[in-house]
Amino acid sequence: MTSLTVIRGPGGYAAGRLAEELGARLVEAEYKVFPDGESYVRIPERLDGGVAIVVQSMFPEQDRRFVETLLLVEAARGVGAEHVVVVAPYTAYARQDRRFREGEPISIKTILSSVRSAGADAYITVDIHKPEALAYFEGPTVNVDPAPVFAEALRGLRDVIVIAPDRGALHRARSLAELLNAPYDHLEKHRDRVTGEITMKPKELSVEGKNVVIIDDIISTGGTIAKAAEILRSQGAKSIIVAASHALLVGNALEKIAKAGVDRLITLDTVPPRQGVEVRSAAPLLARAVKRLAEEQGWLTVE
Amino acid sequence: MTSLTVIRGPGGYAAGRLAEELGARLVEAEYKVFPDGESYVRIPERLDGGVAIVVQSMFPEQDRRFVETLLLVEAARGVGAEHVVVVAPYTAYARQDRRFREGEPISIKTILSSVRSAGADAYITVDIHKPEALAYFEGPTVNVDPAPVFAEALRGLRDVIVIAPDRGALHRARSLAELLNAPYDHLEKHRDRVTGEITMKPKELSVEGKNVVIIDDIISTGGTIAKAAEILRSQGAKSIIVAASHALLVGNALEKIAKAGVDRLITLDTVPPRQGVEVRSAAPLLARAVKRLAEEQGWLTVE
Repeated sequence: MTSLTVIRGPGGYAAGRLAEELGARLVEAEYKVFPDGESYVRIPERLDGGVAIVVQSMFPEQDRRFVETLLLVEAARGVGAEHVVVVAPYTAYARQDRRFREGEPISIKTILSSVRSAGADAYITVDIHKPEALAYFEGPTVNVDPAPVFAEALRGLRDVIVIAPDRGALHRARSLAELLNAPYDHLEKHRDRVTGEITMKPKELSVEGKNVVIIDDIISTGGTIAKAAEILRSQGAKSIIVAASHALLVGNALEKIAKAGVDRLITLDTVPPRQGVEVRSAAPLLARAVKRLAEEQGWLTVE
Repeated sequence: MTSLTVIRGPGGYAAGRLAEELGARLVEAEYKVFPDGESYVRIPERLDGGVAIVVQSMFPEQDRRFVETLLLVEAARGVGAEHVVVVAPYTAYARQDRRFREGEPISIKTILSSVRSAGADAYITVDIHKPEALAYFEGPTVNVDPAPVFAEALRGLRDVIVIAPDRGALHRARSLAELLNAPYDHLEKHRDRVTGEITMKPKELSVEGKNVVIIDDIISTGGTIAKAAEILRSQGAKSIIVAASHALLVGNALEKIAKAGVDRLITLDTVPPRQGVEVRSAAPLLARAVKRLAEEQGWLTVE
């Protein structure tokens, strides 16, 4: 069988668990930063004819992690890998997936096309902001849906309702709600017909007396989640649980979320964990995605 | 005539002078950094059917400047530019232009192929570490030779000898020496046949009583230049002048160079200038390169 080798990049936070789940060899990439700030990476083993699984997440500093990704892919080619799969548990620049204003770039397009042009054959990520954006990678891609991990973490919880903070995140709420056998909805701006006041509330359902699970992809400054939590709390939610894949938690985000009345925050190991945050591993799902992709592509041929 | 528009990126230090030299319109790209560290750029004007000259140097933080370059190119495409030329006065990662050890990436290859895949048609830089590396950009490229600028700065100096700190920089010494009508050489390791001691000295010529011009592409920590200056001083040089294109001057590099007995340091405006350093502009040479390239490619057709 063609060998699978997991390469841990400087952003390869989940590489160890992924290698374990895959039963694959783990190779640690060497890396350093030169005095002027340029990154250096090196893969210290030959990978002739094999499949290199480059594990490298793009958490802050995003640009450095991104460049390291390109360099690792190039290096994997250099040591003879026949196929290179990038596993980027967190993909940076995913929110700039269209020109919101004229003159803007489609940033995620440049990120993915660069990874491709560096020599990656396939790209696997977890819960990207908009799954459609993966089409900018000209090759096979997988967007791992984290819902099974969150559902497992929430097993046994009753009177649940799953809420997406906006319409764009509704697919996440649906996916988790199905596994929990619970209703789901998304927050929507609502204008009071009498006072003209604009408030946010779930489009159709009531959260009163419910254990509310707010699901989202990224927590950056925590503003969106804090606002949603406050609103749902004021509308009678019994408890607020936040399930967010990528907990960047910039600045005082954690404090902000706690103050907003969030009872529990569940996140994934797609970015380095912050102290006091409940982290579940996406590695089993990633391993399954890697295996299925390699099989589908015929990269795991029996010799 | 098809219009040329100069876009000043966040790293577009020399864009103003370049636009002036070209008689072209200058558009300032908007930019900001999001709280989580991602960069945002925007080109606030349509460029339909025109040639966009994206001026963006890759000085530290190199990875941020590089990502901004990709985003600017993508944005230029988005506002309708028919041709996009990247003018990167300083190209980062140029020194990693081969696999010095197995397992290393050819970093400059990933940098240039990413810029290409983002949508750049042509690439212009100043005094790249090895001119051959530009072949990794699959399209027309120009490596601007800064020798005319340095020669102008040194006009009138007598008893000159131009020294490259190593054999790899000999083409720089030759180019400048021709304009100065002066001899040139490069430093070489020399093993004393009797004592076995290794010293550095010019391969063939003596610097005794000469005004020595050390020429190199990049000053990072200043170690190479300081060592060369000390050696040449000890071998009787009357004065030491350093001509270096890209003065990154990391940490205490300037101090180190001064201590080594360098009398004068001449650099270019390819990176933001440090106080007390003599800076000459590469803009006139860049403008000439842009014009010639656009003409050769037939991008400046008379309508």
